[in-house]
Amino acid sequence: MGGDMESFVEVDAASHFPVQNLPYGVFSSKNADAKARVGTRIGDFVVDLAALHEAGLFEDAFDSSCFTHDCLNAFMGMGRSVWTQARKRLQQLLSKDEPKLRDDADLRARVLIPVSDVEMQLPAKIGDYTDFYASRQHATNVGTMFRGKENALPAAWMHMPIGYHGRASTVVKSGTAVRRPCGQVQKDPADPKQGSVYGACKLLDFELEMGVFVGPGNKLGSPIKIEDAEDHIFGFVLLNDWSARDIQKFEYVPLGPFGAKNFASSISPWVVTTDALKPFTAKTSAGEQNDPEPLPYLREPGYSTYDIRLEVAIQAEDIGPEPFRVCESNYRHMYWTHRQQLAHHTVTGCEMRPGDLLGSGTISGDEEGSFGSMLEICWKGTKPIQIKDGVERKFIKDDDTVIMTGWCEGEGYRVGFGECTGKILPAQPQ
Amino acid sequence: MGGDMESFVEVDAASHFPVQNLPYGVFSSKNADAKARVGTRIGDFVVDLAALHEAGLFEDAFDSSCFTHDCLNAFMGMGRSVWTQARKRLQQLLSKDEPKLRDDADLRARVLIPVSDVEMQLPAKIGDYTDFYASRQHATNVGTMFRGKENALPAAWMHMPIGYHGRASTVVKSGTAVRRPCGQVQKDPADPKQGSVYGACKLLDFELEMGVFVGPGNKLGSPIKIEDAEDHIFGFVLLNDWSARDIQKFEYVPLGPFGAKNFASSISPWVVTTDALKPFTAKTSAGEQNDPEPLPYLREPGYSTYDIRLEVAIQAEDIGPEPFRVCESNYRHMYWTHRQQLAHHTVTGCEMRPGDLLGSGTISGDEEGSFGSMLEICWKGTKPIQIKDGVERKFIKDDDTVIMTGWCEGEGYRVGFGECTGKILPAQPQ
Repeated sequence: MGGDMESFVEVDAASHFPVQNLPYGVFSSKNADAKARVGTRIGDFVVDLAALHEAGLFEDAFDSSCFTHDCLNAFMGMGRSVWTQARKRLQQLLSKDEPKLRDDADLRARVLIPVSDVEMQLPAKIGDYTDFYASRQHATNVGTMFRGKENALPAAWMHMPIGYHGRASTVVKSGTAVRRPCGQVQKDPADPKQGSVYGACKLLDFELEMGVFVGPGNKLGSPIKIEDAEDHIFGFVLLNDWSARDIQKFEYVPLGPFGAKNFASSISPWVVTTDALKPFTAKTSAGEQNDPEPLPYLREPGYSTYDIRLEVAIQAEDIGPEPFRVCESNYRHMYWTHRQQLAHHTVTGCEMRPGDLLGSGTISGDEEGSFGSMLEICWKGTKPIQIKDGVERKFIKDDDTVIMTGWCEGEGYRVGFGECTGKILPAQPQ
Repeated sequence: MGGDMESFVEVDAASHFPVQNLPYGVFSSKNADAKARVGTRIGDFVVDLAALHEAGLFEDAFDSSCFTHDCLNAFMGMGRSVWTQARKRLQQLLSKDEPKLRDDADLRARVLIPVSDVEMQLPAKIGDYTDFYASRQHATNVGTMFRGKENALPAAWMHMPIGYHGRASTVVKSGTAVRRPCGQVQKDPADPKQGSVYGACKLLDFELEMGVFVGPGNKLGSPIKIEDAEDHIFGFVLLNDWSARDIQKFEYVPLGPFGAKNFASSISPWVVTTDALKPFTAKTSAGEQNDPEPLPYLREPGYSTYDIRLEVAIQAEDIGPEPFRVCESNYRHMYWTHRQQLAHHTVTGCEMRPGDLLGSGTISGDEEGSFGSMLEICWKGTKPIQIKDGVERKFIKDDDTVIMTGWCEGEGYRVGFGECTGKILPAQPQ
């Protein structure tokens, strides 16, 4: 499925959504009270898959009534052979050589909806959300800032993809405004023993991540083996794991981040499938294999990830009409892959369910410009970003909008994620 | 609603389920294919609330169709005035002076089902599970073992109820067998820098906790204030937060416990309401107020908890026919109350939803016999429990069944939780 595929729907070469992509999402109509349902996207149109189902156009190849749901969980749970069938059928229906949809104006009007007429929803009911810490450069940067260069990586870091359980109820869709959190911050930033004061977070940050949606789950007590992990992975979204650095600093010993992370995590609405990403498979920046070699349950013959270009920009009144780009990174900067994360997550027998979300952890490259959080970019506030005369940023200010984007660059086309955005609203202290 | 209340259903004085209790649970019939539905319990009978609803016996005081659901989430979300109405109506219908149910043999046969004929289910679809660390003696014990007496409590401990996000998918109902997890444990227990080996957990432990089910939630970005917290709390269950101590030791820096906790947490099936627990309100062992005084958002005028007696026993072939009791504790041994936990959880604006579960953290008292985990009881394995000649325990062995129970002692009656049990199955290494 290369760049030579064409649809009768015109798609700009810079669009993230050519016929090679066909991500899945959940949408509702702005001007109708039809319930939320599943769609895919091509160019500037959402393709209503519930309408295609109702028109019988999936021809009973699988139970396509899952597209009438207000979440992707059922489809996610159906597994790879169904996903691949659905994708083939959609690419066929949208192809420039297929008259069924192309030449039926009435059907087209029901099925192809301009993106401006829809409101995107969360793609799935997320049972559990887990966040990893699996980019080596990010872990090294953070470790160096807080524990010094010699003790940068925790002892276990090179042996497993370290992760923690996150808060599923506060995973929000792109565009949701995020209230600056309040909580406890240290009286003396250098000494937690001096205690804390209550107040608004002063060091609010984004974390540039990819999110993985789990497809079929596993039975409680039965780990997912590394060689089977790929079949349990439905697709990817952009993820902004908002972080309150000062709240985190006081609370995180010994049980990890809690309030610093649970106020919001934003995700992009379109889930890009592994089938669409496959042509962009690439070695990770870490090389041919993890080094040192991990324990067998984490060893994968095809140690690889995807070449996904990632960018973060800030939009704000004092910055001007255009967003200001603060970092460029790439999903290749992962040390532990999403398959290794899934194998590690379930090695204890932990049950995964369709629609569970795994965050990659902040994705930072080797260069300064490729760091995936303000904490790293401005090195704990010591190196503010100079945006223009009198305008700088160390962390995220009230009314700033953080915009993440990501795409794979094909020959003459892109497979992309669109945007994941979130605006910070001023705190409302009690 | 004191001890003088009586039902036409005979209830033994030692029963956990007199008419003063009336907990809620979800059950299915063993010998019929009726779907799971909501019930309460009196003595040795489950009261089928879906059948009471269908018979019109709630008289439209509220929308009692929620009792036909296979989970309590809808009822939990309805709030205190509905909960109190439902309780009053049930106590009236079950009273010895009320003929409606008492004298209608046909209705009784549909509504009162012997407990031996039902299978209990998880009471709710748990959106998010959070575990706290809020008993001072437990935190002191664990801290002393791992960091020495001087550094026992982390800096933030006296300032907030420290907690972490847990895994909702693996909260299982009492009676579910639990597979001993595998994972990475340190090669050298004294030095994490020596790396790890893969294997079965050798230091498998229980944690004696209470679980709180959240009722009505809050809007994202709007904290629950401490003075309103009580109205967001539906009820309580027993909770065994299974823990793999050796896996935890290697993985937990810096993001907290992960695989060590995500393989299973068991809860008892009956949710005892705050209305039923109210007569057993008691000061915590910590005294009149938290000392030092916490920040205002955590300060509650009625700093109190409940006097709930708790016990843990182990049943195993080498122990004999009777379970061996390994600890007696009490829910009074909390430093941070469940209301403080809820206020802290949402101080950042974190959204709670009906059916969310909060674990109290291990409940340990001052005395050795009141410690709520094998880690503490046997002090890191240095003081095994001598059960009888040649039989001892340091941690939990394969095929051991851990049995937790808890009840409030009234005058001539008990309001109890029944049991929370789980049997450990041998590991299945990959």
